[in-house]
Amino acid sequence: MAAKRVRLRDLVERFGGELVGDPDTEIERLATLRTAGPGDLAFLANPKYRGELAATRATAVVLPVAERDASALPRIVAKDSYLYFARVLAFLNPRARSAPGVHPSAVVSPGARIGAGTSIGANCFVGRDAEIGDDVEIGPGSYLGDETVVGQGSWLAANVTINARCVVGARAIVHPGAVIGADGFGFARDGERWFKIPQVGRVLIGDDVEIGANTTIDRGALDDTVLEDDVKLDNQIQVGHNCRIGQHTAIAGCVGIAGSAHIGRNCKIAGAAGIGGHLSIADGTVIGAATAIVATIDRAGVYTGMFPALPHREWQKVAARLRRLDELADRVRALERALAQRSPG
Amino acid sequence: MAAKRVRLRDLVERFGGELVGDPDTEIERLATLRTAGPGDLAFLANPKYRGELAATRATAVVLPVAERDASALPRIVAKDSYLYFARVLAFLNPRARSAPGVHPSAVVSPGARIGAGTSIGANCFVGRDAEIGDDVEIGPGSYLGDETVVGQGSWLAANVTINARCVVGARAIVHPGAVIGADGFGFARDGERWFKIPQVGRVLIGDDVEIGANTTIDRGALDDTVLEDDVKLDNQIQVGHNCRIGQHTAIAGCVGIAGSAHIGRNCKIAGAAGIGGHLSIADGTVIGAATAIVATIDRAGVYTGMFPALPHREWQKVAARLRRLDELADRVRALERALAQRSPG
Amino acid sequence: MAAKRVRLRDLVERFGGELVGDPDTEIERLATLRTAGPGDLAFLANPKYRGELAATRATAVVLPVAERDASALPRIVAKDSYLYFARVLAFLNPRARSAPGVHPSAVVSPGARIGAGTSIGANCFVGRDAEIGDDVEIGPGSYLGDETVVGQGSWLAANVTINARCVVGARAIVHPGAVIGADGFGFARDGERWFKIPQVGRVLIGDDVEIGANTTIDRGALDDTVLEDDVKLDNQIQVGHNCRIGQHTAIAGCVGIAGSAHIGRNCKIAGAAGIGGHLSIADGTVIGAATAIVATIDRAGVYTGMFPALPHREWQKVAARLRRLDELADRVRALERALAQRSPG
Repeated sequence: MAAKRVRLRDLVERFGGELVGDPDTEIERLATLRTAGPGDLAFLANPKYRGELAATRATAVVLPVAERDASALPRIVAKDSYLYFARVLAFLNPRARSAPGVHPSAVVSPGARIGAGTSIGANCFVGRDAEIGDDVEIGPGSYLGDETVVGQGSWLAANVTINARCVVGARAIVHPGAVIGADGFGFARDGERWFKIPQVGRVLIGDDVEIGANTTIDRGALDDTVLEDDVKLDNQIQVGHNCRIGQHTAIAGCVGIAGSAHIGRNCKIAGAAGIGGHLSIADGTVIGAATAIVATIDRAGVYTGMFPALPHREWQKVAARLRRLDELADRVRALERALAQRSPG
Repeated sequence: MAAKRVRLRDLVERFGGELVGDPDTEIERLATLRTAGPGDLAFLANPKYRGELAATRATAVVLPVAERDASALPRIVAKDSYLYFARVLAFLNPRARSAPGVHPSAVVSPGARIGAGTSIGANCFVGRDAEIGDDVEIGPGSYLGDETVVGQGSWLAANVTINARCVVGARAIVHPGAVIGADGFGFARDGERWFKIPQVGRVLIGDDVEIGANTTIDRGALDDTVLEDDVKLDNQIQVGHNCRIGQHTAIAGCVGIAGSAHIGRNCKIAGAAGIGGHLSIADGTVIGAATAIVATIDRAGVYTGMFPALPHREWQKVAARLRRLDELADRVRALERALAQRSPG
Repeated sequence: MAAKRVRLRDLVERFGGELVGDPDTEIERLATLRTAGPGDLAFLANPKYRGELAATRATAVVLPVAERDASALPRIVAKDSYLYFARVLAFLNPRARSAPGVHPSAVVSPGARIGAGTSIGANCFVGRDAEIGDDVEIGPGSYLGDETVVGQGSWLAANVTINARCVVGARAIVHPGAVIGADGFGFARDGERWFKIPQVGRVLIGDDVEIGANTTIDRGALDDTVLEDDVKLDNQIQVGHNCRIGQHTAIAGCVGIAGSAHIGRNCKIAGAAGIGGHLSIADGTVIGAATAIVATIDRAGVYTGMFPALPHREWQKVAARLRRLDELADRVRALERALAQRSPG
């Protein structure tokens, strides 16, 4: 983590907040309350870590307004201490940028336009008529197919693949191994064999989108697959053809989304959830970890469907009973009837 | 999507079907009923979209025989309208092929044979004694290990990895980030430590197989991992060592298949399902989404095992009850006994 | 599989065990009992394969002590026949090593140090001040970011990505498509938008670790993500930021581990399991396939939580009943009360 000395007064000037204690206190790194030492700025966001606040060796802390006096250390009091901390962290740790220019080992095809300040890394391939904006960074080994578009200020890390005609907006971040625009999974039966349905749509990705390592987003079959602005995808996610994901929706790792699912805005989907094809998820919906959604969700809410983990022997018993749950319910019904018949009345 | 004008009469000449309406009607693109406009050919396969058929702005449509007169538009009536449409789509959108030849930045090792009409992309690596058939296309950044074999007409997209001695048949499609022939996961305990079991088998892939983006297929431990002809794998699938997957089986995204599982022919496995190791799945079996199979399936059928998603609070209650399901069943049994004892008879 | 003739007496000299039969018996390959032929050495580890032992066409076999006389073939009797076999397999199949040196197409940045006997493959990228030990092999197309460290004797296969400042220990094996050190998934809400929390920690990987194809291990947010010595990860695994995985723990394919989870030593996690964030798993814990763990496990044991697969129609009934399980339990309670009230006593 880069070291860069800064005074609390400089931070408050730049990011606001109330400064309590010596304004000339210098910090040079950020850390968690538990691991912080001299020179570190730490933060409290969740009151349950107050114990760590008491014990921290940090030089200064960022606190939420409600905890203004929970520490005697030099401190910045902010409305949203977590966001404040994130801003300081970003300020002190700007991403190391590669020098602009096309690395001699990169292959740039005819007709490709490459913006000012843009860096194309070693062993990259840029296809015909690709359009890469200003201040873009493309990491080594990445592949941009013919007629791809990458917007201003985007960062594609190493070994990223963007297939032909796909569009990535401005300020995107795409992590290594991500594949955007591979063919969707579409076949028609032709007797016993499968006939491949050409996938001629694109992937259209808005601005400020982040796409995790080894995540895959398939191109549309006829229409396009669309990710709106500020969508955040973690690693190892699969997005099928013709999906649409609304603004500000965040999706955690290992989620699978089948084709033509439409996910609303401001949704949060936890890790390893699965979304079935040809359904819609309402704006603002929250889906729990390892939860499979197989029908449209019209009303925002929190949805979960996960088998609880048990000690293996208990699970064996429960699973055996579960398999016969229909029969058990019938037996309860029979008991209710028998009891009603014998009613003394 | 490439534009290429074609008359309905040309399509019927080439692909059959009954032409109703002006045979000189020209179309230049294909589209869904909902998004089609002038110049577009759309199709109806599922009767539930008849409403969209009524409203479509398409110039012409492909209809199934049973819906022959469901539209007044110029139309082609076909036994299988979906397959017909797929054929027309493929005809109008042939895959853009790279020019044959080995890109100067590619590295081809001694002893490798490269067929006629084959294209080896930028920054590829081809190992010793690799054998690449005619009319193959290998995308930029791909790796073919020593003694690999790729059959005639196959297309490996960008950033594909095929490890040493693995064999890919004819007309295969392998999407970016797929890894074929990495070591299977095999270790023997050596005291507290793990001793790696060398994985010396291969991956043998038949003809007409498609493998999705970031899918991984491990090489066999001693024997080989085998995919038969016309197997279709979606993205992010894991196939363990020594698996065998039968002809025409199609597997959707995010499925995990543990080692030595044998999956029959003509199976369909939905997204995020899991198949345990050392078991067999009968020909023609259908497995539902997010379903874990941990025992052999001898009889073809449709199998499902997915916890239904619920509003979170309901799920909490259900999960708590589920944990004590064994006890609940015992209580029902006790009630039945108590009632039987008091039987008036 | 490489052929190399060896006599049983040579094996016993090297690896111990009791030799029964002609010590000059020559073998040249290893095989399973079922597929072995002349010249092959096979092994029995599990008594349930005794039938295959009787029928094997192998030239010689490795048997556990308890099965010493279960075959009349020339044989080696070993305490742990599986481990013995693995050792012989490794001896007969040393990994083919690339010639030392930096391939002319590789790009090595200023300040990078590359050890003796180390091979850097075609089209690799090695960042500034990277430190690569002796006898390391880096496969074609791999990317090592600035200030990365790779320990002595490690093997990174083709198309591996190690981001800046991450550390891989000695004798590691990293399979194709693995991504080590991509950003963790961390955002703070800034009104409706997401503010990216810079991920400034590293990934620290111990000695003798193996990482499967297309597995992703995120760098820490502030602190580091840590894999201790002898951890074994299969393919398609996701390890979130700030996780810690203890020595000798083995994790099968498609497992997802959310951020800040701490997994103990000597754990075994089966395929497609999911581990929630900010929790701990005790040393020696075993987690079943497709099982979601969402709370800390303090006591080692075997834990499972998987919905059993059923014929689809049965599943529909069971799922419908499950949704109303809380109500069913209430009805059982009501029955118990009703019966108690009418008790003849």
